[in-house]
Parts: sequence; C-alpha cells; structure tokens
Amino acid sequence: MSEEVLNYYGRDVMPEGARTLPARYYTDPAFLKRELDGLFGKMWFYAGRSHEAEKPGQYFVRELNGHNIVVSRNTAGAVRAFHNICRHRGTRICTEATGQLPGSIQCPYHAWTYDLDGRLIGAPHMDEVPHFTKADYPLLAVHADEWDGHVFLNLDAAPAPLAAQLGPLVDRFRTWRMADLRLGHRIVYDVKANWKLIIQNYNECLHCPNLHPALNKLSHYLSGENEPLQRTYMGGRMDLRPGIATLSMDGTCPREIFPGLSAKDARSVYYYCIFPNMMLSLHPDYMLTHTLWPIAPDRTINVCEWHFQPSELARPGFDASDCVDFWDMTNRQDWHVCELSQAGIASPAYVPGPYSNREDLLYAFDRFIVEFHDRRT
Amino acid sequence: MSEEVLNYYGRDVMPEGARTLPARYYTDPAFLKRELDGLFGKMWFYAGRSHEAEKPGQYFVRELNGHNIVVSRNTAGAVRAFHNICRHRGTRICTEATGQLPGSIQCPYHAWTYDLDGRLIGAPHMDEVPHFTKADYPLLAVHADEWDGHVFLNLDAAPAPLAAQLGPLVDRFRTWRMADLRLGHRIVYDVKANWKLIIQNYNECLHCPNLHPALNKLSHYLSGENEPLQRTYMGGRMDLRPGIATLSMDGTCPREIFPGLSAKDARSVYYYCIFPNMMLSLHPDYMLTHTLWPIAPDRTINVCEWHFQPSELARPGFDASDCVDFWDMTNRQDWHVCELSQAGIASPAYVPGPYSNREDLLYAFDRFIVEFHDRRT
Amino acid sequence: MSEEVLNYYGRDVMPEGARTLPARYYTDPAFLKRELDGLFGKMWFYAGRSHEAEKPGQYFVRELNGHNIVVSRNTAGAVRAFHNICRHRGTRICTEATGQLPGSIQCPYHAWTYDLDGRLIGAPHMDEVPHFTKADYPLLAVHADEWDGHVFLNLDAAPAPLAAQLGPLVDRFRTWRMADLRLGHRIVYDVKANWKLIIQNYNECLHCPNLHPALNKLSHYLSGENEPLQRTYMGGRMDLRPGIATLSMDGTCPREIFPGLSAKDARSVYYYCIFPNMMLSLHPDYMLTHTLWPIAPDRTINVCEWHFQPSELARPGFDASDCVDFWDMTNRQDWHVCELSQAGIASPAYVPGPYSNREDLLYAFDRFIVEFHDRRT
Repeated sequence: MSEEVLNYYGRDVMPEGARTLPARYYTDPAFLKRELDGLFGKMWFYAGRSHEAEKPGQYFVRELNGHNIVVSRNTAGAVRAFHNICRHRGTRICTEATGQLPGSIQCPYHAWTYDLDGRLIGAPHMDEVPHFTKADYPLLAVHADEWDGHVFLNLDAAPAPLAAQLGPLVDRFRTWRMADLRLGHRIVYDVKANWKLIIQNYNECLHCPNLHPALNKLSHYLSGENEPLQRTYMGGRMDLRPGIATLSMDGTCPREIFPGLSAKDARSVYYYCIFPNMMLSLHPDYMLTHTLWPIAPDRTINVCEWHFQPSELARPGFDASDCVDFWDMTNRQDWHVCELSQAGIASPAYVPGPYSNREDLLYAFDRFIVEFHDRRT
Repeated sequence: MSEEVLNYYGRDVMPEGARTLPARYYTDPAFLKRELDGLFGKMWFYAGRSHEAEKPGQYFVRELNGHNIVVSRNTAGAVRAFHNICRHRGTRICTEATGQLPGSIQCPYHAWTYDLDGRLIGAPHMDEVPHFTKADYPLLAVHADEWDGHVFLNLDAAPAPLAAQLGPLVDRFRTWRMADLRLGHRIVYDVKANWKLIIQNYNECLHCPNLHPALNKLSHYLSGENEPLQRTYMGGRMDLRPGIATLSMDGTCPREIFPGLSAKDARSVYYYCIFPNMMLSLHPDYMLTHTLWPIAPDRTINVCEWHFQPSELARPGFDASDCVDFWDMTNRQDWHVCELSQAGIASPAYVPGPYSNREDLLYAFDRFIVEFHDRRT
Repeated sequence: MSEEVLNYYGRDVMPEGARTLPARYYTDPAFLKRELDGLFGKMWFYAGRSHEAEKPGQYFVRELNGHNIVVSRNTAGAVRAFHNICRHRGTRICTEATGQLPGSIQCPYHAWTYDLDGRLIGAPHMDEVPHFTKADYPLLAVHADEWDGHVFLNLDAAPAPLAAQLGPLVDRFRTWRMADLRLGHRIVYDVKANWKLIIQNYNECLHCPNLHPALNKLSHYLSGENEPLQRTYMGGRMDLRPGIATLSMDGTCPREIFPGLSAKDARSVYYYCIFPNMMLSLHPDYMLTHTLWPIAPDRTINVCEWHFQPSELARPGFDASDCVDFWDMTNRQDWHVCELSQAGIASPAYVPGPYSNREDLLYAFDRFIVEFHDRRT
C-alpha cells in the first residue's frame, strides 16, 4: 500500500519525531486489560461466519477477555448470543466448540433449561422457593448482529448499531457478495506477539521486498492507495502486477473471479482492518479473513480463513492450495517478525524508533491507541 | 440427602434471596490464601491413614499451603509430624513421598541427624561454635493425632484437641471400626475447581437424577436425612433402594457387610464432610474417603481411597472393581460439573444464582465461609 | 577449603548468632530483581569465551534480566556487544544462539543494516523523513572486554574497567594461560534453586564427606586454604591427596599438566567465585567454569564447561570422560541439595539456622548480599 494519500493527521510525510510506541503498550498487562475492556468490550468485534450458526440451535463458542459466549440462531432465524453460564450455580453449559442444540439449552448439572432466546423454561424444585419466578433468570445476552455473512458481537450494555461502526464499508464491499461465500480452509496461528503488532504488520508493505519476495513479485509494495484512517477501520488497495491474476503461488487463478467486480477491483486486493479484531482481505476470487483474539500482552490467537464461492467449492477436485499455501507462507513470515518485534520491544533496552513515510497508517493507528489509553487513565 | 430437617439457620425453606456466593470466593487468590492460613492452618486436617505410618520410622509426606510435612511414628508408637526442613541450612530432608527411616532422620547435605522425636542428635563441626547446643535445634513439630485409624495434623501453635473438633462423630461412627480397615484402591484426581465447589457438590443430591442416573437407581436422591450443619462438619444419610445391597455397578455386594451395623445402618450410606478437607462416605461394606488439597483457587488435588476389611482384602482374587468403578464413574461426573462451575463462575459476567430448598447444606456452608472471611478482613 | 584464615570480618570463628539468611533473600522476586539490576546490571559478568567470537562477525547471544545481547568481534579484532534490537521497530535481529554475520547486521523486518561496530549503514525509505540521520540510530552498545580468553560484559552506562573488578586475579592466574585453552565439553544444567545457593554450595566443603565421598577421596575436605572474601570475588585452594594427580574418576590424569605451574599449583585445585556469575575451578590439567544465569528466584541456568590445552584436544582419540564424568556426578549431587535447600527455605516454617566455622565464606558472602540490599532499599 502506498502513502500517496493524506493520513489521519492530514499528512503525507511523517511529522518530525514520529516514533513507535513505548514498550508498555505491548508488554504491560494493564494496557491489554484496558484494551480488552474498553475497545474489545465496547466495539462490535468479529466472531465468525453466519453459516456457522445457520440453523436454529446450531452454535459456536467464542472466548474473549474471560467471557465464554455461545452464538446460535433462534427459531425465527435471528442470530443470538449468550454468556455460557447457567443462572442457577454458574455452570458452563455448552462444552463443545461447535454443536447443534436440540431446540433448547440444558445445563448438565441440575438440568435448568432455556429456550433458544435464552428464556428459562425449566428449573427443577425451584417452584418450592418463595417468590422465585423463571422470568427473572434468562441466560445473559450478548448483542449479536450480522453484516453480509459476518457475525459480530458486542459486550456493551447498549451499543450503537453495527452499521454505524461499519459506516461506508457496508456499501463499498457489497459487490463481493460476501454472504454467499463459504469456508474453504482455516488455519489457527498462535502468535507470540501483541495484537497491535499484528495489525501494524498488516498495514504496511514496506517490509514486503525484504520479507515477502514472493508477494512483492505479484503485487508491487508501492502500488495502490491507502484510505485515511477512520475511527473504526483502516485500509487500502494494492494492485496486481501485469499478468498476475490473483495472489497465489504462481500468480495464476484457477477459480472464476467474483461476478460483478469492476475492472479495477478485478485487478486489486483490498486490505481492510476493521477494529478491533478483523482483517478482511478481498481478492478477485476469494476472501481472506484474519480474526485476532488477544490472550496476553505477548500472545494472540490469529484465525485465518479462506472463503470461496460455493460454485467453486462444489467443483470436483476443488483445490485451494495455490492461495492457501501462498498466504500460509506469507502469514508465517509475518508472524515471525511480529514475534521478533515483541521480543525486542520487551527488552528493558528498547527505545521507540522512527517511522518512515511508508508507515503512515501505523502512526495513525498508534495515535488512535494512545488517545484511547489517555482517555481511560 | 433430603432437606427434611432444620438447617444451620433453623430453616427448611431457603430464605428469600438466598443465592450462591460472589465469584471472588472461588477465583481470588487472596481468598484461598486466607482459607489456607485461617481454616486449613488452624483446624485439624485429614492427612492419611494410621497404617501408612504404622512402624517406627515409617513415613509419608504431605504438602499444604507451602508446607512439606513428614508424618511418621516414634519408637514408643506415637504418631509424629515434622516440617521437612533441616535446622542447619533449611534443606528438605525426606525426598520420597513415602519411606522407612532407619531409626533416625539425616539431612543429605551436611549430615545433621535427628531422632524419631525430632531431637537433633548429630551436627558435624558445630561443637566448635560458641554457645551452640543441639537442644536448641529440633525439627519443627506439627501437631499430629489419630482418630480411629485416621491421621490428622494441625499447623496451629496450640490447637484444641482433635476430639473437640470431631465432637459426636467419634461415638457415632465407632461401630464401623474404621481403624481396622485397610486401603484397597486409590485414585488421585486433579480437579480444576475450587475446593469449596467440590464440597458443595458432595453435599447435595439435587444433581443426581440428571448427572448420576446410575447412582439415583441405587439410592433415591430424596431419600435419607441431613444433619444440620455443625461448626466443624456437615453431612447426612441416604438410603439404599429396596433390593440394593451397596453402591456398586450393579447394586449387589460381593463383600460381607461390616459386623455390628444396625439394620438401618446396613441399608444406608453416610456422607460426612469433616472440615476442612475430608469427605467420609461410609457404606455397609466399605469406607470411601476423599481428601482435598487446594492448590490454587481453581485447582484441587482430590485423593479418593477405598478401604475394606482385612478379611475381604485377604480373600483370593479380591476384586473391588464393582465399587471402584462405580465411584470412579460418579467422581468423574462430579468433577466435570465442578470444573464447569469453576469456568462459569470465573466469567466476568457471572452473577450469583438462587438456591433451591434441596441445597440447604450449601447455603449453610456458604454462611460459614462468609463469616470466616468477614472475621478475617 | 579450610577456614584457617581470617574471613571478611576478620574472624576465624563464627560470631555468636551467625545464621543463614531469611527466606525472602531466596524466594522474593523483588530481591532477585534488585540483584539483577544492581549486581548483575552494574558489575562485569562472565559471558563466554573469546574464541566463541574469534573472527569478525562471529557471534554468540546471551540473555540476562530481559536483555538479549549479541557478542561479536569487529573488523579490527575487538570484541563488541550490542542489544539485539533494531532501532527502527524494535525487532530482534539475530535469531540464532550462535552464528557468523556476513560483515554487517541486517534486520529481517525492513532491512535496516548495521556494520560490525553497530553503526547504521542502511535504512530503506528513511531518507524521505525530514531530519532523519543514520548517525542517530546505532545499535545500542553493551560494554564488552576480555580477560585472558574470557569475555565479560557490563550493562552499566559507564563502568569501571574490567581489570579493576578482577584486581589481583589477573596476575594470580596468569600462569595457567587460560586464553590458550579451548572448550572440550559443555553441560547446561537447569537448577531449581536461587543462584546464591549455588554460590554458597561452591564455597564450602563441609558437605563433601557426606555428599561427595568420591571427591573427598581425591581431595580432603579440610585441606587447603581460603582467601578472605574480597568485594568482587572469593575463593581458595584445596590440595590433592598424595597419589592423586587430578580430579577425575580414578584420580589419575591422562593429560599433561599445564606448563609452568609451580609444584604447589600442580598439586592443588583453585576454586574462585568471581561475582556475580562465574565459578572458575583451575585444575592442574584442565579449567572448569560454571556460569550462572538467574532465571527466577528458584531457578538458575548453570552452564558448566571443561576447557583443555589445544595440544590435548588435538590428540587422536581425545577423551575427557574421566574428568567430565567426575564433575558431572559431583555437579548433580550439588544441584540436588541446592534444590532441596530451595524447597526447604521456601516453606513458611523455615527459620534461619546456625553456621559452622567451616562456612566462613558463606557468612561473609551473606553480609555482602545483605549490605547490597540494605543500600538499595
């Protein structure tokens, strides 16, 4: 991505003295806790794909900041999310990562039972207790909504609508018809680095010539255009080199490209980081998503998924290894340097270093992070 | 166990608003530390069986709250316990979990040597040191006593007698002649749950129909009678169903029942939780003990042992798998829900829930715990 | 080592009430942190052998107190050490424990490049940034110096010369020509004990008759002479028994002894602890070094190396198992009791114990440690 646009601060050249953040932003557990509570706990975060909870009672479980959340669908077809906690003795109810509920949710301990909207409908021997009423003990809800096949959750008590957070992205990426796409491959990476280092790594390609020679052959590191940082996302476009059809091991594309793409979009890859935890990479023929789950200041679970058109997935002998292998190789190169950065930054001798003009989004993201922490302390 | 008796607060119906404890009682390391220091550190706790230190110098080691304690027997036949620390340089002396001392206790580092009462009897080169006298450096003693074949320890400097803590239990269970029994099987469980959740699980059978269908077939979950909570123990009786001889996989009993049991006791199982760490389950033909060793707020080592009459153990082809398998299955079901409760309670979203009338002992135990913490803070 | 000399306090008999240190010196993370910052962080510490960074760009990496340090040699042949941190984004640069740099040091992330003196010589796209100058961003240096084949490092900003710390040792051990020696064998021990317990264990042989019967047969535990404790080292001499040629499994010596040793030195082993982390044991025919790397209050990495004359190493069928096995056996006995001491001292019941007159250096070392902590708090 290039820096040929104004950034968050209206600059196309780094301000004098623009430096990386002090170490504590990456190593102090109090900083991560504040981010988990104040960013991840207040914003809509990406949880998974709608088709992972497609049928009523079909569910998947996500963990964030000590919360364990069941995401499912009610009988009316609406996505629903609940804290995975029985209201009786606090027992975790769903014990599998994914599954199919039999029309109701029953705790394994004393058989308290809830419907798919979380209402308590069975509580043995509780009718003997004075003033007990089932209506007082529904499962604790987590706000859930969908955007074009993506499920987002929000732990805040009264969040603004998801659409308000996504803003113009809803329209901008409509052409890709993301809701139609289906999972083709998933790799879960356990990265020993702060989640912000992964986001920073995603938002500059200055490292591409040195670290990703294969990527740089397909898409020049200075090509394309960045959008100025927004409050809830940031990103930009990179262009495929002439003769390159998509990002794959050899630059050819064995799949049909998405129908309805403009000529320009068919020659581009869009890289958007949707705060706080989704990295959405739209290729002409497939959608790549990274989902970040911060575990510790120096550890992030990073779920990478490749999504394809159902017509492609249905083809006999469907094989996505051309783009899976390409991004798995590139991912591993990225996580390796993220881990090296985490290691170096954690040293007592580390001092912030100077940004180049090619790291405009990082500098802007840092300001966003610094302002967030300043507001909270 | 039923709730057909008055509980600790003289109620047979839960008071309005009776709820489980806040999460911090199960998750906060400061709470566990206070319990280890103030409950486990002041009360007699169950350590093992007398026959594990039967001969002079025969020993076993126990760990609690950072202490490492050697339990043995002196030449006069009295049980003795010592901190496993040489008085010279602090070296741990006994390095095996069990063993036989050769009439004295010698430190492997500089050969300081103690007799079986802990008196220092050898200290090379120390006679050159002015004013040094061996009498000043005995092994640090831990109070030890026995009840009917059970060894109890007390870390307090000047504890009340063990009998005062046990109260009427000494007489009540005399008929079972527990001192005569010998270990037949031991399983050590590592339970990822707070020790109090295990005690609470032990003290209600409301969960039995749902979690333990096999147990409920042998002993109806509403049968029997609870004794009101006492300051140092709580428990009650459950009855075997007609045609059931003991708690075993098929309800039959391949062993002779304990001689001298009353007709009622021969048809009952007594479940007593002797604070802070012993769960004593007396069946017509075997004794089951659980010993709890809290390791962390969310982790407890739980030693389960099956004890039998020596005449049964001596039989050719002695096989206790009928009752070992039954309780191992039931134990695992219980520890699983204890772990699920620990997981749910640890969520920031957890809120205390309402108790039913069938959970009277739990509510009483919670009051005991709350009062303990309130006294200490 | 004997106690027939005056110790640090001018005594050859322990003062009344001389006791080991309170537990917190061995168990409190704050004490270790203070020692790492104030002793290890201010003194020259032993890092490795000069020949491990013999050629320009040949390097090895060491870790201490969160620092990761690259030790290498510049083109002029001088030893150089740097924090392993790129000045751009903080990335760790050298990822292998040892290696050969190609004349320069390049960060794998964005290709910032430094020469072997740490000067920044390449920084892509940084020339676009106003006021950026490469001279401002050298690798962060760590002071490095050599003593007779040993590399020492110092993390202090402006340390006194290494020679000032070593004092008379430079002259005293010149005869051994340590710079000529080369590594024959290395064993890395992970000892679950505080680093000071390992130093204390090294500095008394009162434990030898009981713990090391094989050593005691070769060298009597009361033989030799201790030097009074110095501010930066302590040690002494022990004598080989008649008929014993060196410390080896059978007391014979298959190697030539070091040329130029005096008759007395050829019959002695010198044990010197050079603060804070080197234990140097000079035998008539080989040099043994232990290097201590504190990891936690109860954990120390202990690197043990056997160094020999090149002429011996070059012999066909060179086999050092006679002395490697001897010291490996003796080491394991020592680390075992160090770990037992750590375990005992960590008990809440531990109380300091009395020192004998044979533990004079330990008592002196304790005073050094106590004074250090008193100065810092």
